[in-house]
Amino acid sequence: MSRTLYDLAGEDPARRFSPFCWRSRLALAHKGLDVETVPWRFTERERLRFSGQGKVPVLVDGEDVVADSWAIACWLEDRYPDRPSLFGGEGGRAVSRFLNNWADDALHPQVARMVVADIEPLLAPADRAYFRESREQRFGMPLERVSADRAERVQVFRRDLLHPLRTTLGQQPWLGGEEPRYADYVVFGAFQWARVCSAFELLEEGDPVAAWRDRVLDLHGGLARATPACGAAPALEART
Amino acid sequence: MSRTLYDLAGEDPARRFSPFCWRSRLALAHKGLDVETVPWRFTERERLRFSGQGKVPVLVDGEDVVADSWAIACWLEDRYPDRPSLFGGEGGRAVSRFLNNWADDALHPQVARMVVADIEPLLAPADRAYFRESREQRFGMPLERVSADRAERVQVFRRDLLHPLRTTLGQQPWLGGEEPRYADYVVFGAFQWARVCSAFELLEEGDPVAAWRDRVLDLHGGLARATPACGAAPALEART
Repeated sequence: MSRTLYDLAGEDPARRFSPFCWRSRLALAHKGLDVETVPWRFTERERLRFSGQGKVPVLVDGEDVVADSWAIACWLEDRYPDRPSLFGGEGGRAVSRFLNNWADDALHPQVARMVVADIEPLLAPADRAYFRESREQRFGMPLERVSADRAERVQVFRRDLLHPLRTTLGQQPWLGGEEPRYADYVVFGAFQWARVCSAFELLEEGDPVAAWRDRVLDLHGGLARATPACGAAPALEART
Repeated sequence: MSRTLYDLAGEDPARRFSPFCWRSRLALAHKGLDVETVPWRFTERERLRFSGQGKVPVLVDGEDVVADSWAIACWLEDRYPDRPSLFGGEGGRAVSRFLNNWADDALHPQVARMVVADIEPLLAPADRAYFRESREQRFGMPLERVSADRAERVQVFRRDLLHPLRTTLGQQPWLGGEEPRYADYVVFGAFQWARVCSAFELLEEGDPVAAWRDRVLDLHGGLARATPACGAAPALEART
């Protein structure tokens, strides 16, 4: 049976950077399911018309079409119940929903502020104007100004926002408990997004959150590590 | 079999305000377990010596002594597995640990800043000096100054910190999913703490988080609602 995931890509089709798509890729790997990923760009909304909406990830699994990372995770859990569980029971699914919203509503906006200025030059030419315009409207200022204070911002981010993550990872090896689960992939998506798009380092060496991120990079045969980090991007400071 | 919970109280022994003790009281009620609660004050550490530490909640269940709200929840889940589950499976327990840490590390410090100045006059006389000294040391300023900006602080608290809670409660009736679980009690503890200690209102009418708080107040025969709200406290502004 063919299985396809539409996956956000930069100009380089190997640069897969959507935090939401990474949640779905790791969820598929967790279930042991093969998938062909198809590179997709922001301005290719027409190509997703079959899914009834215009955003990735979109999973096509045989006859089924599922859009939205949370919906995909729930669909995989219900469709493949005999494979390793993403949630570890109904209570896990329910509370993972809070964690999913914490990532979307609290973690992502902070990560976005720190890396958004690095993303535009990595995009396909047709995507760049769309990206700059939509993001400058969201933040109400030029992208370079959004990220300009990141050296200070990252200190507060590490100390305050990551505090509950750090405490949890001092108590158990994974956010999912004794083994990785969807909770880990939800939070990891944000760090993978930053890793693939920006040379700016969100985490300090020695932070238990950094050690955990490294362990997620190694999961499922190093799936996430196989997408290279953005080490070669010019520093923000050099471009402004 | 006798079962006792040592529970933080104000000068009025009916004023039970510890967010951690409320987690345990609701967990016991969730399991359908009777318990005698014993009022305890901050400066009565000697009375807890039998537990090997000096903080509440402490649960004494027959021969067993368990301290710390998270440890009590896990102990209840394991000791009474045939009663309604607090976590809904191992995945629920693991991810609830993150939510527990989010409440401790992110939610409580913000609530404390807004209500701490209201707490001291409610305490037993012997507790007042201890409370003021320890909290002023923690915040590095007089209690009245800590809470002085709460009219502005609460706006950001509602908009940003509560955002993931609000999103989740728009998707499912309880943080625990289709039914209340320990995740609900963890977060509710913070709102009950504020409700019992302060007339300052953390939530706006119409906020789905306020509607959820009301529903938790009604659970288990209105257990949490039976402890009166602090409506009679003089306004902070009138005392400074």
